[in-house]
Amino acid sequence: MKTSTIGPEIERLIQLLARLPGLGPRSARRAALHLMKRRESLLEPLARATAEAAAAVKVCSVCGNVDTRDPCSVCTDPRRDPATLVVVEDVGDLWALERAGATRGRYHVLGGTLSPLDGIGPDDLSIAPLVARVAAGGIDEVILAVNATVEGQTTAHYITDQLAGTAARVTRLAHGVPVGGELDYLDDGTLAAAMRSRTPF
Amino acid sequence: MKTSTIGPEIERLIQLLARLPGLGPRSARRAALHLMKRRESLLEPLARATAEAAAAVKVCSVCGNVDTRDPCSVCTDPRRDPATLVVVEDVGDLWALERAGATRGRYHVLGGTLSPLDGIGPDDLSIAPLVARVAAGGIDEVILAVNATVEGQTTAHYITDQLAGTAARVTRLAHGVPVGGELDYLDDGTLAAAMRSRTPF
Ligand SMILES: [Zn+2]
Ligand SMILES: [Zn+2]
Repeated sequence: MKTSTIGPEIERLIQLLARLPGLGPRSARRAALHLMKRRESLLEPLARATAEAAAAVKVCSVCGNVDTRDPCSVCTDPRRDPATLVVVEDVGDLWALERAGATRGRYHVLGGTLSPLDGIGPDDLSIAPLVARVAAGGIDEVILAVNATVEGQTTAHYITDQLAGTAARVTRLAHGVPVGGELDYLDDGTLAAAMRSRTPF
Repeated sequence: MKTSTIGPEIERLIQLLARLPGLGPRSARRAALHLMKRRESLLEPLARATAEAAAAVKVCSVCGNVDTRDPCSVCTDPRRDPATLVVVEDVGDLWALERAGATRGRYHVLGGTLSPLDGIGPDDLSIAPLVARVAAGGIDEVILAVNATVEGQTTAHYITDQLAGTAARVTRLAHGVPVGGELDYLDDGTLAAAMRSRTPF
């Protein structure tokens, strides 16, 4: 009798909510109940918003950003500096830098970091497209805005080697990013300061 | 430029997710990104599940449970004991008792507790319908499964007074040591109650 008293539509909703980061089985049940008690003000709007996002979301073929258009709104913004390319591990890091207003450059999303122990090599990341973008010219500076983790720094070294033959200057974020820290958890001021104090790599 | 680089569909999704209990603005962004990276495996199924739940969800007109039918599957289950009525504050408490398999009775959801300071009086809760259900006869026992808070106990006292003229016996959940609980971590009131209610071993 454990769960047979809940309709299958409700069970399904709970199961899917439990797969969101930050929600476990218990908090997913609370979230589902919260939604169902607010059908008109929250559940129905969320149904529409998820459907619209699912229909609209695109991965930018230029930089790897997630947006509702391809190329994304950063890549197509004429006010952005095309000579500055900010390399990030993940779209979440791109969003964090945008929230901080930390750069007027454009981005390149790697999709992760090199991690030999997890079987993640250069071909599993968007590194060859990055090198191709830079080799095509017009980029003066590549800012490696990767996490200050071992994997992030290993990836930064690897990319620096790959870009050695290009005309671009390679820099990285200044110290100020706590060792072991992840960009997405930093406050805007720290992110902006780290961007201002970026140093040659 | 803070958020202008994110499409309005994505912004809307983040705003709605941030209204779920357990998710703040930051974790809502992470959840939205998590969903968009998994469009086929998670975002589209969630869009369907929320739409189906929104179409299916009903509040039981008998007991106040949230289900996909009215009367709900507990109220219509012929194996449930119609002579036992378990009174809970919230649908979440009903679900918790169902998961525990704690009762074969049926339920009555109050929708909260009396709280004069918050302006919540008897008319704001499903107390009159409860009294009417019991007064209609056929109910031998009313189990007050309210929280062991001041508000919960105040509400229990009020309901007991209201049911004084009916034939039903009114009981409440036992106080005691939680299963697996360690005495050293329990508050004094719980310990004293557990001692008073000690049972033969
Ligand atoms: Zn882009
Ligand atoms: Zn019911």
